[in-house]
Amino acid sequence: MADEAIKQIGKVPEPTLRRLPWYLAFLKLMKGWGETFVSSTQIAKQINVDPSQVAKDLSYVNISGKTRVGYEIAPLVDGLEHFLGFTDCHKAFLFGVGSLGAALLHDSGLNQYGLQIVAGFDIRPELVGTVINGISVYHLSEFSKREKEYEATIGIITVPVDKAQEVTDMIIASGIKALWNFTPFRIRVPENVVVQNTSIYAHLAVMFNRLNSIS
Amino acid sequence: MADEAIKQIGKVPEPTLRRLPWYLAFLKLMKGWGETFVSSTQIAKQINVDPSQVAKDLSYVNISGKTRVGYEIAPLVDGLEHFLGFTDCHKAFLFGVGSLGAALLHDSGLNQYGLQIVAGFDIRPELVGTVINGISVYHLSEFSKREKEYEATIGIITVPVDKAQEVTDMIIASGIKALWNFTPFRIRVPENVVVQNTSIYAHLAVMFNRLNSIS
Repeated sequence: MADEAIKQIGKVPEPTLRRLPWYLAFLKLMKGWGETFVSSTQIAKQINVDPSQVAKDLSYVNISGKTRVGYEIAPLVDGLEHFLGFTDCHKAFLFGVGSLGAALLHDSGLNQYGLQIVAGFDIRPELVGTVINGISVYHLSEFSKREKEYEATIGIITVPVDKAQEVTDMIIASGIKALWNFTPFRIRVPENVVVQNTSIYAHLAVMFNRLNSIS
Repeated sequence: MADEAIKQIGKVPEPTLRRLPWYLAFLKLMKGWGETFVSSTQIAKQINVDPSQVAKDLSYVNISGKTRVGYEIAPLVDGLEHFLGFTDCHKAFLFGVGSLGAALLHDSGLNQYGLQIVAGFDIRPELVGTVINGISVYHLSEFSKREKEYEATIGIITVPVDKAQEVTDMIIASGIKALWNFTPFRIRVPENVVVQNTSIYAHLAVMFNRLNSIS
């Protein structure tokens, strides 16, 4: 209970965690332009948030600006990348090498953000045994064996909707504690398991609706 | 001003638009199981929202449940798919055929959600002239010519961060009114242009942070 309370105090709010990568992208751009210092006002103007919010968000990274000159860009970039976990290597398994799953295997950009997909799993004979972008695809029945071999800590779910919960349960049973769910299905997990839902098709629904209302 | 007021009244809230695809996925699953009716309580339990919220969200789709039996599943699935724009064909151009861009060209699943990527653009000689998953990649300088040919209404931005604003400005100048921004850069657009930001790497940051706090 006491441990839990400490964790809660130190917990970075999700909106902050989602804004920090925006700041990072802008700071890397400024660094590329040869700039050395940046103010929270400059960041705020670019990202379209309040300057006090920027300062508050950055205080979680334990970096504070100096009066007049602001933040030094190079250490701020390094600090943010480290804080966000982008400099670590988190190993992940991908479940369901369909259209979206295979697309993610192709996205080497994930490596730069600290995620390394080490293996894919599927049940379709035409996919099992293939190698996509250097990543082997195994039969789902080999999962527990491969889990011991690779020691992945994250499961990426790109299976069909009607298999999402079943695969989720199997992944959790293996001890994996974080799931990145790309299906439009709302998976159920125990409390101590982390889930991020990235339903890119839901973003499409918003875009189509707004497009209709302006045209 | 009056038009604007009418539009505001009829505007579906973004959280509703993001929840509706979750309902749809679950309803299609139930339909596959051979079920014919569903209650808002059943949907609510599955999606982990309040039953009154489900009823309110579904009222935007102009479908109401019947006392005791609830909603008829088949027309609700059809109604939702139509309402969300998934049954239409929205043509899109993709800008930046790098790792993530090429991955999206590979994702044929987008077609089932009403999005058809009709062409890709890049400036790298090794990419220009290639065909990925049946989609041609053109040089960026051909954009205005191809825009007349394909008449796309959506621009997907997967260029490097330092090119994001420049490409955005060029796309908007062509008359395209909706942008799907996958870069971690906060693009600036005029008021009458629709933007959806899908920064999948920001989701990674949240996941890594939460994973650290439980382990």
